[in-house]
Amino acid sequence: MYRVYGDSQSGNCYKIKLLMAHLDIAHEWVEMDILQGETQTASFLAKNPNGKIPILELPSGQCLSESNAILNYLADGTDHLPQDRWLRANVLKWQFFEQYSHEPYIAVARFIAKYLGLPEDRRQEFEHKKTGGYKALRVMESVLEKQAFLVGAAITIADISLYAYTHVAHEGDFDLTNYPAIQAWLERVSQHPRHVVMG
Amino acid sequence: MYRVYGDSQSGNCYKIKLLMAHLDIAHEWVEMDILQGETQTASFLAKNPNGKIPILELPSGQCLSESNAILNYLADGTDHLPQDRWLRANVLKWQFFEQYSHEPYIAVARFIAKYLGLPEDRRQEFEHKKTGGYKALRVMESVLEKQAFLVGAAITIADISLYAYTHVAHEGDFDLTNYPAIQAWLERVSQHPRHVVMG
Repeated sequence: MYRVYGDSQSGNCYKIKLLMAHLDIAHEWVEMDILQGETQTASFLAKNPNGKIPILELPSGQCLSESNAILNYLADGTDHLPQDRWLRANVLKWQFFEQYSHEPYIAVARFIAKYLGLPEDRRQEFEHKKTGGYKALRVMESVLEKQAFLVGAAITIADISLYAYTHVAHEGDFDLTNYPAIQAWLERVSQHPRHVVMG
Repeated sequence: MYRVYGDSQSGNCYKIKLLMAHLDIAHEWVEMDILQGETQTASFLAKNPNGKIPILELPSGQCLSESNAILNYLADGTDHLPQDRWLRANVLKWQFFEQYSHEPYIAVARFIAKYLGLPEDRRQEFEHKKTGGYKALRVMESVLEKQAFLVGAAITIADISLYAYTHVAHEGDFDLTNYPAIQAWLERVSQHPRHVVMG
């Protein structure tokens, strides 16, 4: 059976939980406490020298890090990851967008607001994160105005990736009122018959 | 013929140039000047609403953004991208590592030092980037001590991705003296018979 090392409140870890629910993949979840240093122990660093979660551990003991790499591994051969070369590249396009232009703003703003309580000495950084986050949301809105899911008419792991932190963007003080296409898309993703909530 | 919109001094764009040289892929290169706002025009935003380079444009006019997604598209079916599901996921693992844990530190330190001349008001940010960059280099060193390339014995697009900014890390004031495995790997990558230099 697969084992996942993760934090239930982390969007990056929730991606794995959500895809495994969609695909009905049995697994054991090992809850990790980052603040207690559990990802920096020698035994964990042997699984991932970068000291980050989530990690997927195979029955063989082999480990895979990086949430989006894990999604690609698990979704391979399923409807959540098209076989077509162009569509597959577009799934990756959105996942790299997520890690570079979305997560560092929207997830970090959430972390500063929700977990740190928006201390005054992080206020300037927080405002910077808001600017970058809204830019990412505008990119998503412009595409979701024209199609139901990020890579066309059907849900893929690109949607799983972007859903993870977008659906809790309000916890980072993002207001989606002016993003109706994103709101409709969030609703659409959450209507999947095998949907599970974060946490 | 493919068309690439890029900046010759950008590591993210160099990835595409280097892979296309390895694979002998004919293309037209359109040099873009970010500082002149050329990635923010209406016509460019129609190609990539995120306003970033590189972009791969197909003969059909379809465009693909995100350097690592472009590498995966171009390398599909070649020796640079294994077909095996586990190896492929490991290629992606390194590419997501590159965009989240490497590029934001090593490429940005280079930008601050080389292009901005390390102004005093960016000094604190620069030192922070150095810390994160060395952490990424330690992760790479620990793996490259044990194997010739990032995903085993043969070069893949994971090596292309990480080579791009690692080989110019000294321009961001990184000292690779204590990273002999990385140095040997840089040399190994540059020995490819179809290697081309940046610029």
